[in-house]
Amino acid sequence: MLLNASPDLRQQIEANEFLHPRVGLRSTPIAAVVLTGGDVDAIAGLLVMRERQPFTVHAAPRVLDVLDANPIFEVLARDIVMRRAVALGVPFDVRQPDGTACGLSVELFAVPGKVPLYLERPGEAPAIAEDGNTVGACVSDGRHRMFFIPGCAAMTPRLGERLRGADLVFFDGTLWDDEEMIRAGLGPKTGLRMGHMSLSGPEGTLAAFADLDVRQKVLIHINNSNPVLLDDSPQSAEVRSMGWNVGYDGMRIEL
Amino acid sequence: MLLNASPDLRQQIEANEFLHPRVGLRSTPIAAVVLTGGDVDAIAGLLVMRERQPFTVHAAPRVLDVLDANPIFEVLARDIVMRRAVALGVPFDVRQPDGTACGLSVELFAVPGKVPLYLERPGEAPAIAEDGNTVGACVSDGRHRMFFIPGCAAMTPRLGERLRGADLVFFDGTLWDDEEMIRAGLGPKTGLRMGHMSLSGPEGTLAAFADLDVRQKVLIHINNSNPVLLDDSPQSAEVRSMGWNVGYDGMRIEL
Repeated sequence: MLLNASPDLRQQIEANEFLHPRVGLRSTPIAAVVLTGGDVDAIAGLLVMRERQPFTVHAAPRVLDVLDANPIFEVLARDIVMRRAVALGVPFDVRQPDGTACGLSVELFAVPGKVPLYLERPGEAPAIAEDGNTVGACVSDGRHRMFFIPGCAAMTPRLGERLRGADLVFFDGTLWDDEEMIRAGLGPKTGLRMGHMSLSGPEGTLAAFADLDVRQKVLIHINNSNPVLLDDSPQSAEVRSMGWNVGYDGMRIEL
Repeated sequence: MLLNASPDLRQQIEANEFLHPRVGLRSTPIAAVVLTGGDVDAIAGLLVMRERQPFTVHAAPRVLDVLDANPIFEVLARDIVMRRAVALGVPFDVRQPDGTACGLSVELFAVPGKVPLYLERPGEAPAIAEDGNTVGACVSDGRHRMFFIPGCAAMTPRLGERLRGADLVFFDGTLWDDEEMIRAGLGPKTGLRMGHMSLSGPEGTLAAFADLDVRQKVLIHINNSNPVLLDDSPQSAEVRSMGWNVGYDGMRIEL
């Protein structure tokens, strides 16, 4: 069977069993989605899910409110796509729409961040706080712990203890240093002003993770000003020497 | 310069000048977007446009209403992304946000289609009508005419005359025959019931275009039940023998 698709796409489809139906004619292997926020980059992917396929959306109430406020998400028909509200700090079992547990437990938890842009007061730098506007996720199958933290403004002792010894952490790799956007002429804001800690420096991510004994560390949410995106940059060599990988589309990790 | 990306993506970026900024540090070459409808597959792509880049959205008032009703589209900041209402049947110049014409003229026009799912009356097959819910676009640079018609329920004499002699037509290739979804157990509806004419048969798309002298014909909006997606199917051979190509991601056509 040859698919009439671009060579790249055809190769991907043939090589990746995730793209074949497992049950019936049109199943997908996606039983549930956990949302960590209401920003476009966290929720727009829902619009490319296959229509009329049952799955569950787990999210904090304020994120479900965002979906409710946008009729376009009604494409996830409510009779087959369940929306379940979850509380921060309370682990829950990820469930299929029929209520069956998937074998994964997830906890959403607040990490340091800033208020959303639309809640900022003009002329005033927003405070960094753990107010639930920025969250991370801990996913566990009972044997391994994986963290997903795409935005984080600071490493606190509490967050460090939570991450210690984890099998895998995906972490905010937005900027290399706090002023790179300003220096490059790309914008007037520092990283911290945008709610992101930077990779370099004594308060940076590389230093903060140095003693946390995390087995696999992957940078995500990387801004296109960050030199770690260049394979041959000194910064890229430095992150690799500290045990980090730089995430990319199609990356697969086994625990 | 090596990008830290999957090999496929890296190759695409290096090979494709469209992915490099042309003006300043972060420009895109997209000056304007013309929307042909308010369905998810017509508008969700707006959410992956680069933020804070000026462009113009041209669309019929009912489609702009859909954007207005969904706050997520406010990510297209209204101070830099212009929204311009256009009337069906009246050619307009595509414009950059500063008002400069791009050199392309577009006409949106009604084609036969059915009412949207949410306006259907229960138990009653919807009538096929040119009511403005299904539209095509004609794009012209003054020398060539290109048509984009992702959904169409029937070929009328008027539509045929409009398309005659066009340089390029992208056309609704949803189904091979009207009952393939039912036969494959994928759903209870015929193609016509969903507002799509089929490729095969005496009233089908291949027959309808046979005498229209369209220079290049490309099938788009192809359902995954349509055997033309298989390179080695007889149906694929048949559409090619009738002068059609089957569209794919990354396709490029020069006129």
